[in-house]
Amino acid sequence: MYDLLIIGSGPAGLSAAVYGKRAGLDLLVIEEKPMSGGQVLNTCEVDNYLGMPGVNGFDMGMKFREHADTAGAIFRTASVAELQDLGETKRVRTGDGAEYEARALILATGAEHRALGVPGEEEHRGKGVSYCATCDGAFFRGKNVAVVGGGDVAVEDAVYLARMCAKVYLIHRRDSLRAAKGLQDKLTACGNVEILWNRTVQKIYGDGSVEGVTLCDTAAQTEEDLAVDGLFIAVGMHPNTEAFQDVVPCDGQGYVIAGEDCASRTEGIFAAGDVRTKQVRQIITAVADGACAVASAERYLTGKR
Amino acid sequence: MYDLLIIGSGPAGLSAAVYGKRAGLDLLVIEEKPMSGGQVLNTCEVDNYLGMPGVNGFDMGMKFREHADTAGAIFRTASVAELQDLGETKRVRTGDGAEYEARALILATGAEHRALGVPGEEEHRGKGVSYCATCDGAFFRGKNVAVVGGGDVAVEDAVYLARMCAKVYLIHRRDSLRAAKGLQDKLTACGNVEILWNRTVQKIYGDGSVEGVTLCDTAAQTEEDLAVDGLFIAVGMHPNTEAFQDVVPCDGQGYVIAGEDCASRTEGIFAAGDVRTKQVRQIITAVADGACAVASAERYLTGKR
Repeated sequence: MYDLLIIGSGPAGLSAAVYGKRAGLDLLVIEEKPMSGGQVLNTCEVDNYLGMPGVNGFDMGMKFREHADTAGAIFRTASVAELQDLGETKRVRTGDGAEYEARALILATGAEHRALGVPGEEEHRGKGVSYCATCDGAFFRGKNVAVVGGGDVAVEDAVYLARMCAKVYLIHRRDSLRAAKGLQDKLTACGNVEILWNRTVQKIYGDGSVEGVTLCDTAAQTEEDLAVDGLFIAVGMHPNTEAFQDVVPCDGQGYVIAGEDCASRTEGIFAAGDVRTKQVRQIITAVADGACAVASAERYLTGKR
Repeated sequence: MYDLLIIGSGPAGLSAAVYGKRAGLDLLVIEEKPMSGGQVLNTCEVDNYLGMPGVNGFDMGMKFREHADTAGAIFRTASVAELQDLGETKRVRTGDGAEYEARALILATGAEHRALGVPGEEEHRGKGVSYCATCDGAFFRGKNVAVVGGGDVAVEDAVYLARMCAKVYLIHRRDSLRAAKGLQDKLTACGNVEILWNRTVQKIYGDGSVEGVTLCDTAAQTEEDLAVDGLFIAVGMHPNTEAFQDVVPCDGQGYVIAGEDCASRTEGIFAAGDVRTKQVRQIITAVADGACAVASAERYLTGKR
C-alpha cells in the first residue's frame, strides 16, 4: 500500500515524483515505456524551459529522470490495464498482471499529437516536422512553413507563425475551416498567410531536413509540390485516458476534467500535465502541474489520515 | 509603443519574457531592482525545479536572466509609480518619471515575506532575524533558534532547522497548527523541537545580534523571555500590488484576482506568479504562469489587431 501512485513519467509525472518524495510520501511511479520523459524525448530542441535554454529533448528527459532518481523515486515499467476506485484506496492492475494499491493517485499519462501518417513524417520529426508551433516556431524565423489542419489550433498556429516566418501556408483538406470565426478573421488579417483549400499532404520530402511537401488537390485531382522548410501538423491531440475513462470523468475529447489544482472529479485521483483539461500544454506547465497535483494529493491524504 | 510590458523580473516575469520574445512580441521588462531573479536570489538552495537539482538560488537567478537575455528581452531598471488603463493601451509611469505604453501588460511583481512588526525586528534583520530558513539556517548551526508561525512554511522551516540547530522552538499564537498533517508528523518526529502554543512575540532583543525574544502567553496572560540566537519569521506573504490595486481588482489579501489563464479582471492586463491568486506558490508554478500569461496576452493582442 502506497501513499501515492503516479501513472506516467513525462514532465508532469517526474515533477510529481520529486515533489512527492520531498513531501515524504511513499510513492511509486508506473511508466509505460522503459524510458522516462514522455513527449520531451522526441523533441529536437527545447528553448523555452526557463533556466535550460537550447536543450536537446533527449538530454532534458534524462535530466528530469535523474532528478526524480536523486529525490528517491522508485519506478516500475508496465502499462495500466485497469484502474479501480475502491473509495479509500485506488487499485491499478498492470498489463503484466501485477496490482498496486495507494490512497491517492496522480494520472500523468499525457497526450499524443495525432500524426498524418504519411511517408516522410516519422523520419522528419524534429527535422522540420513539428506538432507544436509555440514550441518550435522560433526555429523557423524568416523561413517558409506550412500548417496542416483546419481547427482552432491550426489557425492559431498559422497566425502565430505569421509573425516570425516569411510565408505561412495553411493546408486544409476541406473548402472551409472549422476554426472559430474570430480566429479566421485574425488569419485573413495576416498578409503572409495563404490558405490552400482541398489539399491533403501525400508525402513530406527532404534530404535530412524538410524541403517540401507533396500535396493532392482533391477537387482538381492533381498533385503538386510545395517547397517549405517546416511543416506544422495540427490535426488534433489524443489524451492517453483509455484505461480509466470509466473511473475518472473526462471531457468530450477524452481529457480528464480537472482545474489548476489538478483534482479530478473522482476523490483522491488527480490529473497532471497534458492529460487534463487546460489551455496551455507546455513542458513547463506540465512540470508545474506535478507540483500542484502533489500539493492537492497531500492535502487530500492529510485529511484522510 | 510596445506589444507587451512585463513588470517584474522574477521567475514569472523572466519566463514571460522568453515566451513573449519567442512569440515575436515587441516587449520590455521593467524591473525594480538592478538584478533579476526575485525571491530566488535570496534562496540558499533550490531542489525542486525539475531538471536543475540542488541549484544555488543566486545561480538560478543568473541562469534565468541569461535565458531571457538570450531570447532577446530588453530590461529597464525602474520602480512602477503608476499604472493607467487607457483601454486599448496601458501606460506605466516609473519612479524616474519615464512613461511606457503597451497594448498588453503582464504584472509579475511577486510577493514579499510579511514582517511581525514588533520592536527589534527591523534592527535585527540579517543579525539574527531571518525570513528564510533555507537561506540562513546554516549560520545557526549548533545554536538555539525559534520559528514564528503555524502554517506549512513555519513547520517546514522548523523541521529544516532541527537538522542543524541545537534546539528549535516553534512559536505559534494558536493552540493548533494550520500546517499539513504530514508536516506536523515530521515535526513531532524531531527530538529537538518544542512547540510553544498560544504565544505571540512582543519584542526581539539583543545587543547587536539577537539574544532572545519576549513572548506573551495569551492563555495565561503572562510574559516570558526566551533566549535564542535566531528568529525565523514565517507568518505569510504580502503581494506587491500597491502601485496598481486601483486598476486591477485584487482579493482581500491584495493578490491580483486571476485564474490559471492569468487574465486579470481588467482587459489586457495579466498577472503571473506569486502576485496572483493561486494555491501553490513555487518557482515552477511562477515560471508556468509566465507561459500561460503570454498565451493569454497573445490571444488578446491578436483579437485587437
